[in-house]
Amino acid sequence: MTSKIIGVGSCIPSEVINNLYFQSHDFFDESGLKLDQDNVEIVRKLTEITGIEERRYAHKTLVTSDLGVVAARLAIENSKIDPETLDYIIFAHNFGDVPYGNIQSDAVPSLASRVKHQLRIKNNYCVAYDVLFGCPGWIEGFIQANAFIRSGIAKNCLVIGAETLSRVVDIHDRDSMIYADGAGAVVITITKDDIGVKSHLSASHTLNEKDFLYFGTSYNSETLSDTKFIKMNGRKIYEFALSQVPQAMKKCFDESGYKINQLSKIIIHQANEKMDQEIVKRFYKLYDLPVPTDIMPMSINKLGNSSVATIPTLLSMILNNELQTHHIQENDIVLFASVGAGMNINALVYKF
Amino acid sequence: MTSKIIGVGSCIPSEVINNLYFQSHDFFDESGLKLDQDNVEIVRKLTEITGIEERRYAHKTLVTSDLGVVAARLAIENSKIDPETLDYIIFAHNFGDVPYGNIQSDAVPSLASRVKHQLRIKNNYCVAYDVLFGCPGWIEGFIQANAFIRSGIAKNCLVIGAETLSRVVDIHDRDSMIYADGAGAVVITITKDDIGVKSHLSASHTLNEKDFLYFGTSYNSETLSDTKFIKMNGRKIYEFALSQVPQAMKKCFDESGYKINQLSKIIIHQANEKMDQEIVKRFYKLYDLPVPTDIMPMSINKLGNSSVATIPTLLSMILNNELQTHHIQENDIVLFASVGAGMNINALVYKF
Repeated sequence: MTSKIIGVGSCIPSEVINNLYFQSHDFFDESGLKLDQDNVEIVRKLTEITGIEERRYAHKTLVTSDLGVVAARLAIENSKIDPETLDYIIFAHNFGDVPYGNIQSDAVPSLASRVKHQLRIKNNYCVAYDVLFGCPGWIEGFIQANAFIRSGIAKNCLVIGAETLSRVVDIHDRDSMIYADGAGAVVITITKDDIGVKSHLSASHTLNEKDFLYFGTSYNSETLSDTKFIKMNGRKIYEFALSQVPQAMKKCFDESGYKINQLSKIIIHQANEKMDQEIVKRFYKLYDLPVPTDIMPMSINKLGNSSVATIPTLLSMILNNELQTHHIQENDIVLFASVGAGMNINALVYKF
Repeated sequence: MTSKIIGVGSCIPSEVINNLYFQSHDFFDESGLKLDQDNVEIVRKLTEITGIEERRYAHKTLVTSDLGVVAARLAIENSKIDPETLDYIIFAHNFGDVPYGNIQSDAVPSLASRVKHQLRIKNNYCVAYDVLFGCPGWIEGFIQANAFIRSGIAKNCLVIGAETLSRVVDIHDRDSMIYADGAGAVVITITKDDIGVKSHLSASHTLNEKDFLYFGTSYNSETLSDTKFIKMNGRKIYEFALSQVPQAMKKCFDESGYKINQLSKIIIHQANEKMDQEIVKRFYKLYDLPVPTDIMPMSINKLGNSSVATIPTLLSMILNNELQTHHIQENDIVLFASVGAGMNINALVYKF
């Protein structure tokens, strides 16, 4: 017994933020020194490394759970199930609802409760909770839903990943250009067929890696504020991801029992284009193989890094034929993988 | 196959806050009107209803995850397992780490990651995540751990509930006197014996109940701040709890297959003494029975309402023989139950 995807949906926010938006920002490094390059050069270099040309921000009137509602509604419609038959609504995020212009996050009641309320679901036994697991939170929610299905306490689950990172960025940190807003959602259901989840893996590296991604004060020491923002130690994350993620992906893939030449797609968290390419290169190197053409769909160039939302959004785009060069067919084997704050890594092998 | 408790621990903060602490507060009602009773009378009435004579606040230097670490360490020691054999660390909370004097909560990395780091656990496959489910979050974490064990992806899980509600209270709201800080933790493991979890139930009432417990602005309209605090609609919660919780407890208990005269203890979320007594009275009324003597241990009079922490703390106190009149023996059947923000309700029947 396992679980299969029967519906996908996403919410791509309306506000397109191109690189010109950052032209007048004053950027500092982590020691508080003003960067001596001009902004055109800073932005050009960031685009070169991360692949990000544009990102999306949520409209000022919306919060994370609102984006989640849009994605959830589309996923339910796409699945054609009666929403009253949902046993779980699992909402992955990391910062709660942060209203525009406010520094307080709000997750009481949980964002899953807010979504369930907006969907007007009456069934009280549809259990709504939030999971915090860094960027890999959406895959982790999927793994939890799969466990509930396998243990016999659920049949249908809605798993949402949504975030508005634009509300927690330090405008004086060039990494602020990476972060984006968005939401993706998937409806999964029980299946006894030879499709669905074939293997999964989760890991939390906390001994030395706990603070690679953290909530910290502005790089501009003149602000003298104790307000915190999303912060990353980019170099350490890059090294960590390259040394740990390919092995984790291989371990998970090998557990599925498939051969490497059966793998159709790798859908990886959209954190950084160069990093993702290097992870996939190293993954194939573990099999002594070059990276196959068109194995890795990317959305980061237009959508940025929307944390937990990148994978369900990208999956939704592919299944809805919104990417020109990437399609998923029946029987395709797809490897999902993510890495983020914790530092957490997870992976999941899925047969469509 | 099910799961059993093999270790318990708690962290009862050192700062005793008695009712005199609130003597000089200016209290307002939800419409912004100053209460016309004097504070001695307001406090006396609150104590009469809730049973709270004292509550504990965490030391200013500590945050929620620090309390969680203390409880977790004690639970692991009590269980005698090697912490490296833990498959999951599940941390239930609702507000993240809120440093004293700060209004921003911080949950990146997750509080579970912080605990795992502090415990110096090296095993990367010990998965650390946070769950948000209102006050019933700790029972829900236990239910999730049980599902992981039953689905074959875990053997040993640490489930922590910790909160520092003192950091999110509106000092102008008399309900602020209810809230407290604390942490409790339990280690559970797989078992094939006739002990452990026998049944469980979870429900999310969100259609009309979503905002009964919420994050809202101060009752003192003169503060003119958009800072948010934990807020409750006490009357609606009371009516909701009395109409829904007894039935949920009965449904869960009946599913366990035990007879009502076999029930040894009810360990219920310490929200309000009068409410808890009335819930238990109505629960027994559903069986046409009076409430047995000493069925419901209480800690609220000295510890207040520490949200997710009340149940594991109370369980830890009983199993460590820290309550005079309440003990749990081998073969005892215990019903756990909770209600809180969401609005969520859950229950769990356990054989010791």
